[in-house]
Amino acid sequence: MTAARDPGVEAGAPAARERPDAPSSRERLLAVARGDAEPDLVVEGGRVFSAFTREWLDGDVAIADGRIAGVGRYEGGERVDASGRFVVPGLIDAHVHIESSKLLPAEFARVVVARGTTTVVCDPHELANVLGADGAHWLLDASDGLPLGVYVMAPSCVPASALESPRGPLGVADMAGILRRRRAIGVAEVMDFPSVIAGEPDVLAKIALHPHVDGHAPGVTGRALDAYAAAGISSDHESTTWEEALEKRRRGIWVLLREASNARNLVALLELVRRHGPDYCAFCTDDREPDMLVREGHIDAMCRQAVAEGIAPEDALVMATLHPARCHGLAEHGAIAPGYRADLAILDDLESFRAAAVVAGGRVAARDGVAVPFAAPPVPAWVRDTVRAAPLAADAFDLGPAPSANGGAGDETAGHAGDARVRVIDIVAGQLITGAADEPPAVRDGRVVADPGRDLAKLAVVERHHATGRVGVGLVRGFGLRTGAFASTVAHDAHNIVVAGVDDASMAACVERLVALGGGIAVADGGAVRGELALPVAGLLSEEPAEAVVERLDELVALLREQGVEGDAPFMTLSFLALSVIPDLKLTDRGLVDVVGARVVPLVS
Amino acid sequence: MTAARDPGVEAGAPAARERPDAPSSRERLLAVARGDAEPDLVVEGGRVFSAFTREWLDGDVAIADGRIAGVGRYEGGERVDASGRFVVPGLIDAHVHIESSKLLPAEFARVVVARGTTTVVCDPHELANVLGADGAHWLLDASDGLPLGVYVMAPSCVPASALESPRGPLGVADMAGILRRRRAIGVAEVMDFPSVIAGEPDVLAKIALHPHVDGHAPGVTGRALDAYAAAGISSDHESTTWEEALEKRRRGIWVLLREASNARNLVALLELVRRHGPDYCAFCTDDREPDMLVREGHIDAMCRQAVAEGIAPEDALVMATLHPARCHGLAEHGAIAPGYRADLAILDDLESFRAAAVVAGGRVAARDGVAVPFAAPPVPAWVRDTVRAAPLAADAFDLGPAPSANGGAGDETAGHAGDARVRVIDIVAGQLITGAADEPPAVRDGRVVADPGRDLAKLAVVERHHATGRVGVGLVRGFGLRTGAFASTVAHDAHNIVVAGVDDASMAACVERLVALGGGIAVADGGAVRGELALPVAGLLSEEPAEAVVERLDELVALLREQGVEGDAPFMTLSFLALSVIPDLKLTDRGLVDVVGARVVPLVS
Repeated sequence: MTAARDPGVEAGAPAARERPDAPSSRERLLAVARGDAEPDLVVEGGRVFSAFTREWLDGDVAIADGRIAGVGRYEGGERVDASGRFVVPGLIDAHVHIESSKLLPAEFARVVVARGTTTVVCDPHELANVLGADGAHWLLDASDGLPLGVYVMAPSCVPASALESPRGPLGVADMAGILRRRRAIGVAEVMDFPSVIAGEPDVLAKIALHPHVDGHAPGVTGRALDAYAAAGISSDHESTTWEEALEKRRRGIWVLLREASNARNLVALLELVRRHGPDYCAFCTDDREPDMLVREGHIDAMCRQAVAEGIAPEDALVMATLHPARCHGLAEHGAIAPGYRADLAILDDLESFRAAAVVAGGRVAARDGVAVPFAAPPVPAWVRDTVRAAPLAADAFDLGPAPSANGGAGDETAGHAGDARVRVIDIVAGQLITGAADEPPAVRDGRVVADPGRDLAKLAVVERHHATGRVGVGLVRGFGLRTGAFASTVAHDAHNIVVAGVDDASMAACVERLVALGGGIAVADGGAVRGELALPVAGLLSEEPAEAVVERLDELVALLREQGVEGDAPFMTLSFLALSVIPDLKLTDRGLVDVVGARVVPLVS
Repeated sequence: MTAARDPGVEAGAPAARERPDAPSSRERLLAVARGDAEPDLVVEGGRVFSAFTREWLDGDVAIADGRIAGVGRYEGGERVDASGRFVVPGLIDAHVHIESSKLLPAEFARVVVARGTTTVVCDPHELANVLGADGAHWLLDASDGLPLGVYVMAPSCVPASALESPRGPLGVADMAGILRRRRAIGVAEVMDFPSVIAGEPDVLAKIALHPHVDGHAPGVTGRALDAYAAAGISSDHESTTWEEALEKRRRGIWVLLREASNARNLVALLELVRRHGPDYCAFCTDDREPDMLVREGHIDAMCRQAVAEGIAPEDALVMATLHPARCHGLAEHGAIAPGYRADLAILDDLESFRAAAVVAGGRVAARDGVAVPFAAPPVPAWVRDTVRAAPLAADAFDLGPAPSANGGAGDETAGHAGDARVRVIDIVAGQLITGAADEPPAVRDGRVVADPGRDLAKLAVVERHHATGRVGVGLVRGFGLRTGAFASTVAHDAHNIVVAGVDDASMAACVERLVALGGGIAVADGGAVRGELALPVAGLLSEEPAEAVVERLDELVALLREQGVEGDAPFMTLSFLALSVIPDLKLTDRGLVDVVGARVVPLVS
């Protein structure tokens, strides 16, 4: 599926590659393939997965100059023992925002390569919201030379909608600049699906930049989905039911089965694979908190879970290797075959999918779950210190006067405001979608306030790129927060400061601390900060090792538990409450957003 | 699978398209998809094949501006009734030399579109052998605006080997020029597989021109096949056994199942589909004589045959639609889904695969097996009158002195030459490969001669591009020719004049007539021409309708039957005896060619 394109682009094809070989390298590869030269590396004695036939072939895998030379019997070269084990192509994540790991790209690579992942296709739109096109360029720089192949889609939706405030919008020219980079392979998820469906020329111009365009169409079906597909969208990772995914697949849209920290859709979507096979299906993680990466794993965990759900290991493997490569036109990835990039994982078995060793780009990149050390690019200063927020006004988090029973502002001084209702964002456990509830407001001193007894917390989004002082406020239900507040500069997608709390002083303490840190996560109670994690790079990423980040996040979650918070990944849940493109009700610095209506709505319903 | 490429080519990608839409066209398509505008055309009431799920969906297919808008219920627009029928994507031929039909491209289109074919990927290397790069450019010009989507691979092997004599070699720069054309989508079959496997820089430079490269590797297996795949070859259509095809598929090489006039490999290869499913398999016809096209059909005939062999219709259909499109990166072809090119066939049933109607590019292109008339581009004068042969010498077809019993020339005046042996090309019925036999020569007046009693005919190839006077001679067994001769300027791949005969006068009469005609096919006996078919365009193509060409060929075959010839498609068989890259023994104007040894060998073995 492709869309109308730039008429300057000629027809024909395809197939992304990371870096062309020197001719001498290709000649040497052929010599090794023929048997006229010794391989660099031989993975010997395993059962080798043929992604093209779903067979297991007994043989050595010969590698030369970073590529597979063949499967057979080979002498010489460095030897890696795979006897009794399963040799599979390196795992591929079809869609991930590396920023959600809160790790630098090299540290993310260290964690996932140890799990068998050798390629990711990422959308650096978090960085782009904070740093503009430079953020995407930096990600490409920061992932150069890693054992992980990092491909980039040019962010298409910065801002995610007109109701969010990033540092600045990313235009067609910015995207075209990113697409000139070697590892940039398409247009990233076009989240503004209403504009696509409506055929708005601005968004069609972005789609027309490249034949390969990722989608994002939560709950879009029927005629609207026809229009979205007809615009040239080739994938989607937002299905939450197999029926929705089937509708997309029928239209030729790749179904990217997602298992993210707070969007655990895999089990529900596997029914599509059971009924119609794994064609046009691939795995992705989208957004994973560092603790999920460290404890559960990455694409290996999706394979494990799929097999536990009764999916054939071979079907799981193609969805984790060849299919994501095909989805993205990565013609040298996803299989163990001559000429393919020498990325592979040696698995203990087809239940745990534990990688005993990993080869990436022809070199041993991990053994026994530990990555082989490699040099990481230095972090430039300009990606730090990005948090620019105006000092908070005393009434920054005021929710306004209590509504009267007929819907206007009332004059009650405490308790509920008769029949009047206020809008409440309802968290849906394990999902990015939210509900939109109407509840009687809690009122104190004539103002709408939080009501911990009904699990109604205040939610605020503080603009932090240009110190405008703009603050959006609302109510959220589902955290279980009883006292204090917590906040984050990870706040999709504009990454302003999002803060939830039941007392304004704690909310303010969190926000002020995050400004001082240059970004991060904080928990406060009684007006004082109790714990924090600094995320100095763009306000999104730590410079610490994954394990340290996980430990610190655990501490913060433990503090939140003391304050009543329940549910998995509360910081990720918080961070998505500001994303104005996933239904039903969200909050940005501009106010409460009715996502389906694409408009700001008042607190009073 | 791709190879080392021009470092100037950035990563990313892909996906050929015939011609980008104007933005207004895309906006209108979306409006129709949404239901806000009326479709141009509606195929109503059929069962619609979803190539992505192999389901049959009940619904109308709405079409706007040449593309599919959606499948559902639609009002308005031109209506095409499909009730009780099966609506499938337009059929695609993954590899065809249109020239083998002996028809102009527009006439070829008329024949195959009526059969449900809407797209072909062709290698115009016959034209390129005669006309150089201009031949490929002319094919692109001559197929502009047809109801058939004609995509072109840039010929990579002109000449097919150093042992053939085309008008001139086609170099890397010529290929690059062809690849700048909009419908040029890759590098055509790299037939010189020994050079690829050996890693010769000249052929690797051709492969490096484009990420998408078709292959041609008859009988290549094991390490040699590893090297061929590692060079970046992505398809092959030369497998004759399913085991050979499986070896290729394991290496990520698309298996193009071929059913040509004299290479009927489909039935043997379907076992691969039975055992491993239809992934990485697609149908192709390669070379079909006009009578096969008119009587048996095109890709529809392959579907019919596959289903008769027990293949599920859905598996046959994906090999005839989505898979060839995927193989070639034709991202807008091969499926009925929003945004795809509106190419489809309405089939009576899933046994006959008879097309009751065909839609191509959004317009009704055929009804009841008859194409809707369309304007064909005029034929320019410069593609005619290409036959330049020197006058034949009196001894042009002399096979030389009889060998002595010890292998030298003997002095017997008639009969057989003791233990001495001469090489004989053995025709293998229904295959392009030939055997290489050693036989006692027939001798008359001290010279080796034809021996109709043992079905040994003379074979000669007369150079005809530069009037060099070069003639290669040999012996062939298997035609059954008892008297006279027959000849053709269709003589793969260099398209010199190939002539088989048992008397030199008839051979000479054929050749002289073909020179006078500017190309064609002739049958002679007793030194006089009995019948002929003029092929004035490049010596390859008629300007007559298909039915007239078939009728004339039938007459010529009937004449040949009178002269003893047996077997199917004798003219096609004759034409491939000059192709120096398909084992074992062939003949060019340079002499007998030992294909595996890649050398000219003497008649005496």
